[in-house]
Parts: sequence; C-alpha cells; structure tokens
Amino acid sequence: MNTFGHLFRITTWGESHGGAVGVVIDGCPPQIDIDKDAIQFELNRRRPGQSHLTTPRQEEDVVEILSGVFEGKSLGTPISMLVWNKDARPAAYEHLKNLYRPSHADYTYQQKYGIRNWQGGGRASARETIGRVAAGAIAKQILHKHNETETLAYVKQIHTLKATVDTDTVTLQEIEASPVRCPDPIVSPKMAERIDQARRDQDSLGGIIESVCRNVPVGLGEPVFDKIKADLAKAMMSLPATMGFQIGSGFDGITMTGSEHNDEFYNDSGQIRTRTNNSGGTQGGITNGENIVFQVAFKPTATIGKPQQTVDKDGNEVTLQASGRHDPCVLVRAPAIVEAMAALVLTDHLLRHKAKS
Amino acid sequence: MNTFGHLFRITTWGESHGGAVGVVIDGCPPQIDIDKDAIQFELNRRRPGQSHLTTPRQEEDVVEILSGVFEGKSLGTPISMLVWNKDARPAAYEHLKNLYRPSHADYTYQQKYGIRNWQGGGRASARETIGRVAAGAIAKQILHKHNETETLAYVKQIHTLKATVDTDTVTLQEIEASPVRCPDPIVSPKMAERIDQARRDQDSLGGIIESVCRNVPVGLGEPVFDKIKADLAKAMMSLPATMGFQIGSGFDGITMTGSEHNDEFYNDSGQIRTRTNNSGGTQGGITNGENIVFQVAFKPTATIGKPQQTVDKDGNEVTLQASGRHDPCVLVRAPAIVEAMAALVLTDHLLRHKAKS
Amino acid sequence: MNTFGHLFRITTWGESHGGAVGVVIDGCPPQIDIDKDAIQFELNRRRPGQSHLTTPRQEEDVVEILSGVFEGKSLGTPISMLVWNKDARPAAYEHLKNLYRPSHADYTYQQKYGIRNWQGGGRASARETIGRVAAGAIAKQILHKHNETETLAYVKQIHTLKATVDTDTVTLQEIEASPVRCPDPIVSPKMAERIDQARRDQDSLGGIIESVCRNVPVGLGEPVFDKIKADLAKAMMSLPATMGFQIGSGFDGITMTGSEHNDEFYNDSGQIRTRTNNSGGTQGGITNGENIVFQVAFKPTATIGKPQQTVDKDGNEVTLQASGRHDPCVLVRAPAIVEAMAALVLTDHLLRHKAKS
Amino acid sequence: MNTFGHLFRITTWGESHGGAVGVVIDGCPPQIDIDKDAIQFELNRRRPGQSHLTTPRQEEDVVEILSGVFEGKSLGTPISMLVWNKDARPAAYEHLKNLYRPSHADYTYQQKYGIRNWQGGGRASARETIGRVAAGAIAKQILHKHNETETLAYVKQIHTLKATVDTDTVTLQEIEASPVRCPDPIVSPKMAERIDQARRDQDSLGGIIESVCRNVPVGLGEPVFDKIKADLAKAMMSLPATMGFQIGSGFDGITMTGSEHNDEFYNDSGQIRTRTNNSGGTQGGITNGENIVFQVAFKPTATIGKPQQTVDKDGNEVTLQASGRHDPCVLVRAPAIVEAMAALVLTDHLLRHKAKS
Repeated sequence: MNTFGHLFRITTWGESHGGAVGVVIDGCPPQIDIDKDAIQFELNRRRPGQSHLTTPRQEEDVVEILSGVFEGKSLGTPISMLVWNKDARPAAYEHLKNLYRPSHADYTYQQKYGIRNWQGGGRASARETIGRVAAGAIAKQILHKHNETETLAYVKQIHTLKATVDTDTVTLQEIEASPVRCPDPIVSPKMAERIDQARRDQDSLGGIIESVCRNVPVGLGEPVFDKIKADLAKAMMSLPATMGFQIGSGFDGITMTGSEHNDEFYNDSGQIRTRTNNSGGTQGGITNGENIVFQVAFKPTATIGKPQQTVDKDGNEVTLQASGRHDPCVLVRAPAIVEAMAALVLTDHLLRHKAKS
Repeated sequence: MNTFGHLFRITTWGESHGGAVGVVIDGCPPQIDIDKDAIQFELNRRRPGQSHLTTPRQEEDVVEILSGVFEGKSLGTPISMLVWNKDARPAAYEHLKNLYRPSHADYTYQQKYGIRNWQGGGRASARETIGRVAAGAIAKQILHKHNETETLAYVKQIHTLKATVDTDTVTLQEIEASPVRCPDPIVSPKMAERIDQARRDQDSLGGIIESVCRNVPVGLGEPVFDKIKADLAKAMMSLPATMGFQIGSGFDGITMTGSEHNDEFYNDSGQIRTRTNNSGGTQGGITNGENIVFQVAFKPTATIGKPQQTVDKDGNEVTLQASGRHDPCVLVRAPAIVEAMAALVLTDHLLRHKAKS
Repeated sequence: MNTFGHLFRITTWGESHGGAVGVVIDGCPPQIDIDKDAIQFELNRRRPGQSHLTTPRQEEDVVEILSGVFEGKSLGTPISMLVWNKDARPAAYEHLKNLYRPSHADYTYQQKYGIRNWQGGGRASARETIGRVAAGAIAKQILHKHNETETLAYVKQIHTLKATVDTDTVTLQEIEASPVRCPDPIVSPKMAERIDQARRDQDSLGGIIESVCRNVPVGLGEPVFDKIKADLAKAMMSLPATMGFQIGSGFDGITMTGSEHNDEFYNDSGQIRTRTNNSGGTQGGITNGENIVFQVAFKPTATIGKPQQTVDKDGNEVTLQASGRHDPCVLVRAPAIVEAMAALVLTDHLLRHKAKS
Repeated sequence: MNTFGHLFRITTWGESHGGAVGVVIDGCPPQIDIDKDAIQFELNRRRPGQSHLTTPRQEEDVVEILSGVFEGKSLGTPISMLVWNKDARPAAYEHLKNLYRPSHADYTYQQKYGIRNWQGGGRASARETIGRVAAGAIAKQILHKHNETETLAYVKQIHTLKATVDTDTVTLQEIEASPVRCPDPIVSPKMAERIDQARRDQDSLGGIIESVCRNVPVGLGEPVFDKIKADLAKAMMSLPATMGFQIGSGFDGITMTGSEHNDEFYNDSGQIRTRTNNSGGTQGGITNGENIVFQVAFKPTATIGKPQQTVDKDGNEVTLQASGRHDPCVLVRAPAIVEAMAALVLTDHLLRHKAKS
C-alpha cells in the first residue's frame, strides 16, 4: 500500500494539506553517514517554485530527522523524516470540494474510500513524493559508498521537443545547469520557451524523463517476479502522472530482428561486456554491469487553466474554470523523483543480493 | 522473489528441464468452482507447438491439481498445481554448458548464483510462465464470477506490422481464430508470412501485445505504491523478454497538451463516465470503471539460428551457432500469459479492496 | 522489522531520547471515527509517572495526528502519529555509554549494529511501545464498531502474588480502579505493597498479564502460519521483557488427558458453543467465538538499583551502580500495551477475513 | 497465510487426504549441498508408525525434489518438494463428514470457509507439517555450514512426568535412542508406559517439547517486531496442538527478583559471556551467543477413543465414538518438527543479518 521495498523499505504518509508529509525508512544499514544537506539538496530539486518555469507556490520543504540517526550516523533503526506543510490554504480549494477534476484522482478516491481530502489533491498530490525523495537521498549515499553507483535522470523530451544526451557522460552539473533539467544545450532553451507558451495558453505539457544508472554491480535482481526491470517499472509507474516505462531498446526495439537486437558479449581486458546495450543493463531480470537506461512517460499535467467540462458529486454536469497560476510542466521537477526511486530499487536489491552471498 | 501478489498470491517454481514446473496459489477464496478444463485450455494456448508458426517442441503440458480443491470447489487452502517436464533432453544443451548466449540470462545467472542449470534456460526459460498461466486461469474464474470482468490480450504489432483492433468489441474467438493471435483479419496473414520469413532467415521478431480488461469494478488499486498501473507494470515487466509497458495514451500521449489529453467526465444516465480514455481506465492509481488498456513490448526472441559472437565461461571469444529449429516469434503464445498476469493483478486488488469495505 | 500486520499494518519508529517516537498506520479502513481523546487515554495508561508505584519520570506523552484523518474521520490513507520526547536528558546516561547493563539490549545492539544510541535504551526502550498503543487505540475503535469486540488486559500475577479474575465479567473500570491494574480487590493492595518493598530494596519484580478478548467474530485466523494464536504469540513476544505466552489451558493443560481437556460442543439455542474453553477461543488457529484468553510472562525489570557485575565495551569487568529512582515493576503500565497488541492482531485478521468472504 | 519467513521463505500446501503435501522453499542460497538422505531422515523422524507408541498408520513419506537442485547443489531458485499421500482412505472418515469433533478444527474451518475437506483433518491435519520438516532439513544444512549451529529438540515432559536434561550436552543420538525421544534414561521408560496406558484407556496425553540451539551467531533478530523470540514464538504457535511458548526462565522466572534474574556479563578469555542464561540466549530480541533454550506446550491429542458429546452441522447434539486405533501422544514425533521450525527461523534471520553487514 504505502510501503515500498523488501529489505530497504520506505513507508510514506501525508496529504498535501494535512499537517505534514513524511517517510519512515526501515532497513537502512547501520553506520552510514547521513548527510542532511544532501537530503535537503534533493528536496530543493523536487520542490515547486525553483524558477519561473515551475509553480509559484513557494513551499519551504525543510526536512527534519526524528529518529534513527545518532551523531551523524544511521543506527540501523527506522529513520523517520518529515516536512511540515506550511503553505496550507484549504480555502483556495473550497470551490473544488464537490467537483471531479478531469484526469485527477478526485473521482476514484471518492468512489474507493467514500471520503477524500479535497484540499489540493490530498494523498494523490505530487507532494506525496517528498518522502520518496528524502529516502532516496539516503539510498544514494549507500549506493555511492558501496560501489560509487550513481543514478541520474533528466528531461529527455517535452511535448514534441526531443533532446540528445550521451548516457555514458552526462553529469548532474549539466542537468542542473538547465532550468528545465535537460542537459542538451540546444534543446533546453526551446523547451523553456515551449513551457512558457503553455502557461500563457493556460495549458500543460508532458514528456519523457530518461534515467541512467552507472557503476551498477553485476547480479542485482531477484527472478522471477522481482526482476530489476520489474521493480523499476513498478517504482516509476507508482509515480503520479506516469503513463509508460521502457528499458533499453524499449518500444523502439520491436522493429529490430533478433540478430540486430542481441547484445553480443566480448572480453574487455578480462571483464565480460556487451558491445551494444539494447538490454538496458539487465538480462534475465539481473543486472549485467552495463548501464541501466530507462525512460518514463509523463502525461501532460492534469491541472490546466482552460475551462473544462466535468461533473460534480451529484452527477450534475458543470464547467470547471481553475483559478490562480498553475504549473504547466511538472517534468522539470521530476528528475529528482525518478533518481530517488531508482536509488531505492537498487539499494533494496543490493541488500537482498548481499543476504544470499 | 518467486511470489507475486498480496492476498491472492502465487509462488511459481521449476526449471525448464528439472522434474516439473508448478505453482502454489495461496489466498484463493473458498467455494470457487475450479474448472480444470479451463486451466488446461489456457495452458494449451501458452504451449509451444500449436502450429507451424511456433516452436516444434511438442510439449504436453498437462496440469495436475494436488491440493486445495475438494469436490470441484476451492477449499480456501493452497492450490498446488504442476506440469511434468516430459520433453527433457539435457544432451541437446550440452554444447551450451559453458557458453553465454547473447541477450539470454546465462551470464547474469552464473554471476549472481555462481551456478546455473544450463539445460534449456533453467529458471529463466519461458517455461516458467506455466505456473502463472495456470494460476491466472483460476483468477479469471474469480473475476468472472464477481463482475463478469474479463481480461483479453492479443498481438497488436509484430516487427513493423501494426494491427487495428477495437478494444471495446474484440473477442476471444476473434483472437483465437488467428494463427498469430492477431484479431485484425487483414494484418494477421501478413504477420504469419513475416514470421515464416524470419524462420527461413534464422532470425527472430518482436512486437507488442495489447490487453484490454472490461467490466472492471471501480475502486481497485492501493495508492501510493500499489497503484493498479504500477502492479500491472511490474507483472508485465516480470515476464521474460519484455522491454516496455504503457497504459492509456502511453508514450504517444506526451505530444498532446493537457487540454487535449484530459478525460472529461460526463453523466451517462446516472453512471459517471469519461468521454475519452487516455487514462487507460485508471486515475490516481485506482480503476475508474472504464476499460483498462495497456501494451507490452517484447524484444525479438534472443534464440536465433544465425551465428553470433560471444564468450565462454573462461572469457574466450567464440562463435555460437545454434542447432535445431527455433521459435522465431514468441508473441503468438504471449496473449495467454499477459491475460493471466492481468487477471492475477485484478484478482489480488479485488480481494484487497473487499478487505476495506 | 519495524512493521507489524498484513492489511492493518503499523510501522513504529523512534528512540527513547531522539526527537520523537511515532507510528504510521497503513490500511486503516476509511470513514472510521478517529477519537483523539481515546488515543490519548490509552497513552496515559501506558505512560510512566501515573502514581507513586511507577517511575517518577514525568513524561507528557501528547499525541499529534499528522495525516490520514480529515474532519474527524479516517481517509483510508496512512495515519501518522507522533509524540515528542520532552524529557530527553542524555547527560543522565553518560555514565552508561560504554557499559553493558545486565539483561538489557546494550550488548546485543552494539554487536549487531556496531553502533547504538546509549541514551536511555535507544530503540530497545519501552518508550518504543508508544506507537503501538496509539495505533491500538484506533484498532479498538474499528473492532468496537464491527462487532463490539473488546480487548482487556490486567495484572494477573506479580512476583508470587496471584489474582483471581473472572474473564467473563471483568471490566475496564475494575482494572483502572486498581493502582496496580489488578482487578482482584484482595490481592491488589498486596501487590502495591510488594512493589513498594521492591523499590526500597533497589530491586524489581516481574509477573503475568492476562488478557481476554470478548465478542470475537468466528472465523478469524489464517492457517497454517498466521493462526490467530501464532500472531498473538508473536505480538506479545515482540514486547520488551516478555518471556512467555500461553493461550487457553496453556502450560497447565499438559497434565490433563484428552478426555479432560477437549472442549465439547453443544447447541446453545441455535448457537454452537463449547462447554469448556481450554482452547482459549481458537481451534485450528481460527477463532470459534468463545473468549480468547491468554497470558504473557514479563521478567522482572532489568533496571535495578542494586550494584551488579558487568563488563564494558573493552571487556573490562566493572561494577554497575545505577543512580536515581527506578521503576520496580513495569507490569502496572503493561495492560494498555497488551490490549493494543491484541487489538492490532484482531483488526488485521478481521480485514483479512473480509477479503475472502 | 501459508508462507513463513522473509528471506528464507517456505510455502506449504496439501491436505491430509488430497493428492500430496509439499513445500516450496524460496530464497535458499545457491551452491548449498542438498543431502536428500538428510531430508528423508527428518521426515522419518516425523512420520507416524515408527514404533508401537505412535499411530499404526504406516505412511511412507518419501520425499521427491522437483526443482531448484542441480547436480546435488541448490541453484538459488525455488526448491519444490512433495510427498504423495499413499494411505488415503476417505471412506474411513465418512462418518465424520457432518460432525464437529471436539477440540479439532472441523467447526472453525466450516465456519470460516463454508467448506472443508473432512477426510482426516484436511489442511488442519498434522500431516501439513511434512513440508516444514523437509524445508527445515535444508535450513539445518545451511546453519551447519555457516557456524555449525545446531537445533535440537526432545520430550521434556509428558503428562506429569518431567525429564532432567542438560541443554549444554544433550545429543541427537541420546534423543533418538529413546522410543519416546526423551533423553532422560530414567524417565523415558516411564513415559512409554504412561503412553501405553493412555492408549488402553482410549485417552491421550500432552506435554512439553524443549529445544536448545547451540553455536548461534551473535546478532540475529530484527527489532522491534521480528525479535528472535517473537519469530520463534510464532513459529511454534503455528504448529497444531501448541498452547504455549516460553524462552529462558519463561513463566517460572516471574517469581525471581531482578537482582536474581539478571544475567551478569563477564569476560571469558576475550569472549563476552553471561554467567546465567535466564534470558534464554536473547536480549532485546537479538541473540547474544548463549544457547537459545525454549519450551513448547502441546495439549493432549484431540483424537481419543472414548465417547464424547458434540454437535453435527445441523446443530443436533450427538455422541462421537471414534473407531480404529489412535495416536495417544503426538509428542514423540514432535521433536523433528520443532527443530525444523527453529532452523527455519534462525536461517531466515541469518540471511537477514547478512544483508545489513
């Protein structure tokens, strides 16, 4: 339900306008240096209001660590972290109380639970990902310590604009240097322009986040159900607004034949490698040491300024006209979230693999 | 690891050339009519050797039910089913003992476990899916009893050939009437021809399986991690050879704007419906009563007849020349597997939803 | 690890002297009235400093609800609750930093994790049970709403003093009326006297908590591993200081023969009942509608005032002389904890049973 | 439900008179030598009909390994094992079809599931433990390989007859040398006599199994819920007919004071040890390297020859008169089962501990 992972396990909680949002990490190995600044850095990457391209809601998402850390190191006990909701303005949502916003979760939550927090999306708000990002920041520290494994993500496509990125060399600095978090210096400004246009149009855009994981140990993944590609897929498809996941050659690979697609092995000075990486770093559900490369499709943000037809709780057909400014493209904030989920999956599988060896 | 599901839970076991393969279902509700013929029907759809288009290996996959059923009804206790491996010819694989076949799991299994059953793929063989299909057949019976919910899957694309299928009306009969399980009567024969050509070329093809679930109850899915789309993604990406999953508008949806993509609600004679279904039947991770429509990308089969470069266990670079006939396109057999996994996910979530209501 | 339950699932976190202790409940059904006062009532029963018989540490354990509740009702989303640690005096534990207190968890935590929070027991402190009690208070509300099921616990024995209690009729009022929470008015004052004597002796006492669950629905429990007696045993043996669990006739029943011990069925005006209840309300691991009656043995509190021999981290043998007042008998505070754990087990099984029916 | 363990996980299945009973082990580390004879040895210790003291039903419980083992070693994939039910005589139970046998699971299964296999106890039969014992035999091999850890169990008490056993020195040979599996040569023949008398009386007896685990690594156990004592308690209380569990000083320890009960540490030539072991080898839920010593209470067998009052499915009060010979004391067969469960718990925790270190 609200728990993810088997050995490195996170439980997130919190509505967008309740008292706070947070996470409990269970299974963090002891004696890991917990760098609070690194956690805050990731939360800052995720939060709205970073530039004029993202939502103007100025949330100060300051993390508090309530347990599990002692003198800067993990104790091996649960690490509880929270971020208070400071920008709670329930009144701003009063007019949405009885409406079902199109392509939002209002209707399904109401039908499933018979009750919902209608203030700002409640549990279905993207604010829920704060706990994931905070936990992912710690997972990153574990991965780095173990094998200098890193997870990077960036905007690969917005609307029809596609970037060219070298997965072998792209750096965090290049990603962060772009206001839209697209490390292609040619396409990045076009994307920013396209987003600005969407805001002026009271409309919104979707796109693709691409992620690469480097220095991944060989052998992670637990067939047959907990294949690394399966757990990555679940992790990504558990994020709000995601519509697709593909790894390696993905959907494009189907127009290749087997002889074109197969990744031939060769001996690279004693290290067994593959000449191509159509498999995306995993074969039989287990990492093979090549980079893990995957993509996640995000639909255009459901919240738009244009008027839309919908119904209310009583079934009356009504016109919804959103007020205030909106965030026309959440992808700009998504890389931190995708990286966090990738780090959580890899850390969980790292621990699982250690248990058997 | 080898268990899938939370309340309706399956554990599969077995290597391709060990004694048998099987499954234990834990959590099947009591008093369900267990139709053994229906289970066998699904296994027959999955097994190789159904036509000249599939592998000539003539496996007789006869299911045995060993527990959990009494006088034709489920007891509520674990249902154990197995299929004996009758076509075990370990000698046929002797030459592969020390080789790592490209894009197979040989290398990663060897690295992860330090040991592997090199006879026919071992645990990584597609034969592992027998247990899933047998369990899925029972899940289908539960879904049908509850709400006449049905899960259908068919070949949507092979190589570059794309079919046109109406998800609202397609039937099992139409799917089964096609030797390639593509219900588009125009494209189906072309696909058969393309597969035959691939066999002659000693090559292989990939493609897309599309699935539609109809009469799905509103309210299935457990945010935030066990969203219905997340569990479907995991289920599909846990299958051998899968490279991508998309739901609703998927990767194509990203070139739409929010105002184009949003599914507006309307009142259909008292039933709240959406005019479009870009969401693919799920919003906020919870089913909204519209059809669930998703697609799964399968890479071209890794086993081909053409010679390939690879390495052996000692790192020597060698040429692999497969012997015997091969199955140039496993997609023909995949619909039964995809349907089974969809049925398992929906059944599990049906029970989980009942627990809270 | 720090999560308990399958469908009604709690995750507790917090050290005794970290920032806070808390719990996340995942799986609480929606639309349950959440009575914050009822939660606080249970926390007050659990907390030290209630009378001169318990520890003088005056903790104000005020619960805060941070998520999952909206306008007084559960949302079906995670309920996060915490209690701040206000009485944190790390300096008071400085002298224990390098010592292994006998029959405490200092040594095993240090060996397992290579690090520990030596301030007041850290995670091994009884303060950890705050989260359990808060969650149990909500479970009690669910049980009461469903079938007026109630879980009661009381002191059955302290040291050699045994109480006589009628499990059919004992009430919460009778339990709370006793300063030692023993509803036997004859033995209760003797127990209080015995505890006072133990404090004067700088020593401590153990005893037995007995619990009765009434109005339990027939059919709870999931064989073969999640039998109701097995989950109750795990719940109780997961509490600090517990040394034994028995249900129904327990260890005493072994001196009976089968013909003496078997609970004969009879027809009580259409309701099938048993004439005796040696089974303790469960047969085959499933509740039979009779009262569940079980007992839990608590060892004498490990913290005493008398000097003791022990070793420090470097293996030096040293004498430990505790300073300050101590709590000579934690049993007085244990009933709230045992009731909470029983309520959590029953609620979890209630939801699990509903899923299948 | 029917799965036990977190990383070393078993799923058992099978009714007493269905086709077979079996187990799937998921999570067995690779490259473990799997000694089939050792598995069969344990099944032989468990099975009825070993001597005139046990039931005359001559079951030949021959184990078959269907997967997960290759050339004598574990593959790291699921190990599936089964034992066919050869002695299925449904007719012998026909007269019990509509009866609820006192202190059996007939009534609760019928109420819970609305259906039951009335042939010989169905899933509630002790025959279900075959899978546990087979899996436990493999767990023993893992424990022995890792640290020469051993789990031993024996009859400590039958009815009023109590044995004296030295937990430090007792051997498997001493246990097996006794027809009642009580290694006290004085009490053992008296127990045999008492059992014979019970059979002649058409009655049955209960008792206590004691278990000692030696050479246990320090650090096993995962607070706060998966304490080693909690998981042992659950394991034992999940067995048929168990009524109580105690560890270390158990229920007897409550008449000691803290100063008497605390286990003082000392330095034993560089190894930190405790002078006494009232804690039973675990402190704070984590093993401390001392022997784990625990006891399990088994009620007198519910099946007896004497006539008993009960009701049938329609609520009619009837007299039950069992036919045929019965097994007056199952404790003789219980040591193999208790050892298996202890081995399963320790192996699971061994893997869990390795994951974090």
